[in-house]
Amino acid sequence: MTMNGTTLIGLIAALCTTASFLPPVINTLTSKKTKDISLLMYAILTTGIFFWLVYGILLKDFPLILANVISFSLSVCVLVMKLRHG
Amino acid sequence: MTMNGTTLIGLIAALCTTASFLPPVINTLTSKKTKDISLLMYAILTTGIFFWLVYGILLKDFPLILANVISFSLSVCVLVMKLRHG
Repeated sequence: MTMNGTTLIGLIAALCTTASFLPPVINTLTSKKTKDISLLMYAILTTGIFFWLVYGILLKDFPLILANVISFSLSVCVLVMKLRHG
Repeated sequence: MTMNGTTLIGLIAALCTTASFLPPVINTLTSKKTKDISLLMYAILTTGIFFWLVYGILLKDFPLILANVISFSLSVCVLVMKLRHG
């Protein structure tokens, strides 16, 4: 398989996991209902997404960077909202 | 940064995102309460994790393989439970 085929698989992966991450996050951001979110778990998740992003940048891996830039941005927004609204 | 340093960052990323994924999944698997789970979203998520796993295997990337083998196994269990119990 060529590098282009591999990158395509990575982009499909990025599309699917980001797409499934979006609805609950957007729902939380629009409703501002953050009570059901565990601060500890979300902090760990956001840290993990940050490290995936750094990992992607170090490897110059486009699918990893793309997926984790979007997820990290949204995740930080939810985390800030959780810290503000409890 | 050496490859070992990069891999370490990938492993921290894998540890964090897998750790934050585990509690709700284990909670769902033990309680068998799958009503709040969207079948469509979980199917898309599981597909995405599967493609990340394939991507990791194609790139021979240990952190990607490790994180997604665990997440994929658990995700499939939740999906099967959702299909059985509704």
